[in-house]
Amino acid sequence: MSEKNTSIKPEIPGGFIDLLPEAAIAQETLFAKIRKVYESFGFVPLDTTCLERVDVLTGGDENFNKSIFIAKVVRGAEDKKAAGSEWDDSLGLRFDLTVPLSRVVSAYPELIKPFKRYQIGKVWRGESPQVGRYREFYQCDFDIIGANSILADVEVIQVMNETLIALGLTNFTIRFNTRKILNGLAEAVGCAARAKDFFRVIDKLDKIGVDGVLAELARQPEDAADQTALALPEDKIKKVAEFLQLMDKGQDEILSGIKDFFADSTGLGEAGVKELTEISAALNKIGLPPGRWQIDLSVARGLDYYTGPVFETILNDMPELGSIFSGGRYDGLTNRFMADSNIPGVGASIGLSRLNVALNKLGLLPVKNSVTDVLVTVSEGLEMESIKIAEQLRQAGLNVEIYYGADYTFRAQISFAARKNVPFVVIAGEDEIKAGIVQLKNMSTREQKPLKIGECATEIKNLLNK
Amino acid sequence: MSEKNTSIKPEIPGGFIDLLPEAAIAQETLFAKIRKVYESFGFVPLDTTCLERVDVLTGGDENFNKSIFIAKVVRGAEDKKAAGSEWDDSLGLRFDLTVPLSRVVSAYPELIKPFKRYQIGKVWRGESPQVGRYREFYQCDFDIIGANSILADVEVIQVMNETLIALGLTNFTIRFNTRKILNGLAEAVGCAARAKDFFRVIDKLDKIGVDGVLAELARQPEDAADQTALALPEDKIKKVAEFLQLMDKGQDEILSGIKDFFADSTGLGEAGVKELTEISAALNKIGLPPGRWQIDLSVARGLDYYTGPVFETILNDMPELGSIFSGGRYDGLTNRFMADSNIPGVGASIGLSRLNVALNKLGLLPVKNSVTDVLVTVSEGLEMESIKIAEQLRQAGLNVEIYYGADYTFRAQISFAARKNVPFVVIAGEDEIKAGIVQLKNMSTREQKPLKIGECATEIKNLLNK
Repeated sequence: MSEKNTSIKPEIPGGFIDLLPEAAIAQETLFAKIRKVYESFGFVPLDTTCLERVDVLTGGDENFNKSIFIAKVVRGAEDKKAAGSEWDDSLGLRFDLTVPLSRVVSAYPELIKPFKRYQIGKVWRGESPQVGRYREFYQCDFDIIGANSILADVEVIQVMNETLIALGLTNFTIRFNTRKILNGLAEAVGCAARAKDFFRVIDKLDKIGVDGVLAELARQPEDAADQTALALPEDKIKKVAEFLQLMDKGQDEILSGIKDFFADSTGLGEAGVKELTEISAALNKIGLPPGRWQIDLSVARGLDYYTGPVFETILNDMPELGSIFSGGRYDGLTNRFMADSNIPGVGASIGLSRLNVALNKLGLLPVKNSVTDVLVTVSEGLEMESIKIAEQLRQAGLNVEIYYGADYTFRAQISFAARKNVPFVVIAGEDEIKAGIVQLKNMSTREQKPLKIGECATEIKNLLNK
Repeated sequence: MSEKNTSIKPEIPGGFIDLLPEAAIAQETLFAKIRKVYESFGFVPLDTTCLERVDVLTGGDENFNKSIFIAKVVRGAEDKKAAGSEWDDSLGLRFDLTVPLSRVVSAYPELIKPFKRYQIGKVWRGESPQVGRYREFYQCDFDIIGANSILADVEVIQVMNETLIALGLTNFTIRFNTRKILNGLAEAVGCAARAKDFFRVIDKLDKIGVDGVLAELARQPEDAADQTALALPEDKIKKVAEFLQLMDKGQDEILSGIKDFFADSTGLGEAGVKELTEISAALNKIGLPPGRWQIDLSVARGLDYYTGPVFETILNDMPELGSIFSGGRYDGLTNRFMADSNIPGVGASIGLSRLNVALNKLGLLPVKNSVTDVLVTVSEGLEMESIKIAEQLRQAGLNVEIYYGADYTFRAQISFAARKNVPFVVIAGEDEIKAGIVQLKNMSTREQKPLKIGECATEIKNLLNK
């Protein structure tokens, strides 16, 4: 490379992170486990483009208010100088994996329905960088497209449960609700037309409590410009209070309570009661442990596109993390591409950064900067023998490095293995090679013993449970 | 989602492709195999950001002439309207994985050297879309940073060899050379200062033959503006011809031939002869089959950053594909960030799109749009029983779907399995469930037999070699 300028700083932009080997190894392990569970339910991988047309991303919505990265091509230095002049904003980096899924489902009608896909991929948000919030991060979604059956909703809960178990977690609760209950409530208190504002208030329950929510719902507009105040009258506030009181009840009481609550309403509320009843019955019947799930009428999931059941998952020991696995049913997924197509969808997405915090805290992720099982030492003039020994160990299924640093001393080679946390060193000196053996050094016990290479492989595999 | 506009086309931009399930499944299989071999040599994963600072990408080179995507943040609809006005060209999408590697090596000096990493990730090129050339594609690199030893170069050849074998390929040849030989030749014919132009001509050997190359090297400038003509005098042309004649010789003759050729030159040529001699000796000694590799003096690798050995891999039955696995040694990797650091690097990168063409042709990639081993049918009122059976089969290690389409008829369920190429169907009707058995239907033989669930799992696993 001809370098005109050597003062470039090797920096990444704010809000971005590199996954160095230790983090990348942990992440690979995580993804492999997740992928295995998703595939065990028949979900297939999908890999959509990272750049999408901007109108696909925004749905042509003039009020689209997410911060996205839009991209343009710059051809070489000449173009770069003229960058401002030929801006083309037709491409943007995807901000989630749901919009690309809806594009794919619309563009390829030949995909057999129900279409069950998962996707693990990066997404980008143009938000201002702040601690713990990134502008580039992974999402890890699974969705079922084209199934109206409640069995699909039940399966989503099953997949969430088994994924977390596969990651080593056990003490968690999957909380669910349905948007039909909440929409029914909005209907019942005359807020159907302002459902979004209404849910925004209900969503604050954890933070401001029942009284806070009721006060906020009753709040009168401060002035003519105040668009958010809902100003509910007293009888409606009473109705909301009655609903919120149900939340702390046991599962059976909640079900009978909402049945009563919606007894004289038809439509949404009634349909919602039916959904919760059916899902609960199914979970009981298939034997999901009762502590593992609960109906929680406060679960709303902020996004306004959910239309049916909604799911959240709380780690019981770390509720402060919030939901680490969330999702729900949305039946308008493809409508931006095909008006009134109303293709049903239901799925969930892991909150990877929260999950990583939890798994790290619980020691459930590998903490290692190397994947190497054995380092084979090298002696001057006998390098090829070391390569051959390494290859034999590799054929036996081990991850093997040979040493090829500049400093050939024994001490340097052992120190290299120690710094990289390589658990075993195979010493292949002149005497050993002549005798057809090697010395196997266990780096944690510091023990060393002479073995034939075949024995050596068996011993290491036993000790590593490989 | 409130959709203001339902006329959005579900299109991707030109030059981009989605990997639908069949392609994504094949790709996952491919990546898993590659990853396994890379890790078996102790290479660790690295996951760098997709967006980099533009000065990092270009190295501050004013003559940087690649087409890259640069990106800016647009915050919501308001910003979008004002897009032209506040262009910020400080971020760009990476065009390869080598520049990010050099940034990481420079930014994190604590990484233990030799640092062996692999990275599988997407890169973006702003080039004009054309058939078979994409603007977004995967690269799959492995590199060794901080090792001067020839053992590292030998290992790169070993990794290339074992990766291709793991993918099912056997009939391929790894051709190698060193840039020191070519630079030595340029030196010997007085072209050291114009090495780039000189190599561009040598690189055409496959296309225009020896005579074509010699004629092009001898060509006089057409006019004063013609900067590419090298106008070599007759004695230098004779020297190049002498060199090119060596190319068709056997391996031993090439080695002795270049030894003679560079007998009276010092420096680069001599060092190059030493490199080729040592690598050949090593490959012989460690038993890489002689047909699997060869010294090829025509291998140059276009990029000018290589400084030592260079590698290419040809499929003997499909030479027209060009090199499917290429790389080399470059010792100025980090110089753009740390002047004169001259940290040595050597590695290689798989040409994934070419490889895919070859593997498809040879039937070495899975062609399936499903990962499901078994579909469990569902009967009205007995859905929960089906879920429980599915879960038992899953616990036995199978990938299992239950049917939850709208049409519950047996015919619809079998047809669904057939269209998705699911190899087995487990029929759990009322009679079977009462009798504590299921019917196992083999979709390829059409055979059907009653089995207990445990037997069923064993039978399927045997037939699928799982």
